[in-house]
Amino acid sequence: MGNSEYRKTIDYILDLIRGGMLQVGDKLPTERSISEKLGISRNTVREALRGLEILGIVNGKQGSGNYLTDNISESIAKAMDVMLLMNRTSKEEICSFRRSMEKTVCSYLIGRGCSNENKLNIVAALNRLKESEGTSENSIADRDFHYSLIYATENSFWITFMNAVSEVYMRWIDNFLITADHSIQMLLQESHEKMVQGIITGDTEFCLKAIDSHYDIIENGF
Amino acid sequence: MGNSEYRKTIDYILDLIRGGMLQVGDKLPTERSISEKLGISRNTVREALRGLEILGIVNGKQGSGNYLTDNISESIAKAMDVMLLMNRTSKEEICSFRRSMEKTVCSYLIGRGCSNENKLNIVAALNRLKESEGTSENSIADRDFHYSLIYATENSFWITFMNAVSEVYMRWIDNFLITADHSIQMLLQESHEKMVQGIITGDTEFCLKAIDSHYDIIENGF
Repeated sequence: MGNSEYRKTIDYILDLIRGGMLQVGDKLPTERSISEKLGISRNTVREALRGLEILGIVNGKQGSGNYLTDNISESIAKAMDVMLLMNRTSKEEICSFRRSMEKTVCSYLIGRGCSNENKLNIVAALNRLKESEGTSENSIADRDFHYSLIYATENSFWITFMNAVSEVYMRWIDNFLITADHSIQMLLQESHEKMVQGIITGDTEFCLKAIDSHYDIIENGF
Repeated sequence: MGNSEYRKTIDYILDLIRGGMLQVGDKLPTERSISEKLGISRNTVREALRGLEILGIVNGKQGSGNYLTDNISESIAKAMDVMLLMNRTSKEEICSFRRSMEKTVCSYLIGRGCSNENKLNIVAALNRLKESEGTSENSIADRDFHYSLIYATENSFWITFMNAVSEVYMRWIDNFLITADHSIQMLLQESHEKMVQGIITGDTEFCLKAIDSHYDIIENGF
């Protein structure tokens, strides 16, 4: 059972994807047929498919086979979890990264222009967030608001990656939001509104300042 | 062979890491001992270890066992490759992301301050890049220069992630640099110098403009 057979199986699947023969949602060839086709043991084929599952490309459903899927941000989030676990990074580093990323996203939206549709989505998310204050929906509304900024970039690479960062980050923020008192909620909401105002009016400096005050509040509370 | 046994094996290894019993470079318990300890088949244990290999946490050396490793940026790069393969992202999106990231990194360095040691490293990398023009070392020197900016953030999460982005990106840029003529090389070098000048003098606007002109040259050449 060599490493190269493992690789061969993975390459076979990737070739099917590359060739367009396999799309997200499609069922993969059975383990047996791959094993026969490549002359590789079923154990190795199964290992390789599990590897692809970890990468977020394959979803194995018990009793029904393997399906092509698209959970790449989940697998990046998993890698981040492992980094945290191994002390290769810290909560502080990820928070600082996220603050910078949000600044980048907003500068990008202001610099490159943000479509009216995206502006409306951002404002709608801001309003839902306002209405959710004090309810159990608050942390989801908060996540959706920050997502709405990233989605407005219309860059799927950015969206996938930031979804992964958010997945890890949101565990901390959820905790913070649940315990935050009304005055902190008001300050957060004020900074959310100013961020949006900066995007709408195209005032980068104003927007970045609002992001800084937003993350200052959160990081002080962590 | 249930999914839960696979999970159990992974959790067992992660617990060893969490508890500090396993550090980067250490040899993992043998597949047999894990299998006996958890009462799980060796095939499942092996599958789980291969999964951790894909995540960049375990390195299996033929005939010698499995070692704890730290190839997380490689595994993120692999996930990016898959996204490209599945048309979930494009060269354009990754380039645009990278341009924005470099702006974020430089704004961060200027805003938060960059230590003298890091400034010296950046200048040294710039000088090596200048000297390498026209030689086969040029694309490595170019990568090292851009790395020196990211390293100056001293944020390991950022470094790990950008290493992954660079790994994918550099394949394109290498190709570009090899074929670029002297006038393009001069323009690139000028923008590199201006970026550094902006960082040293703390002039964000000047620096960001230089980054834009740098990536405009590259993206026009792609």
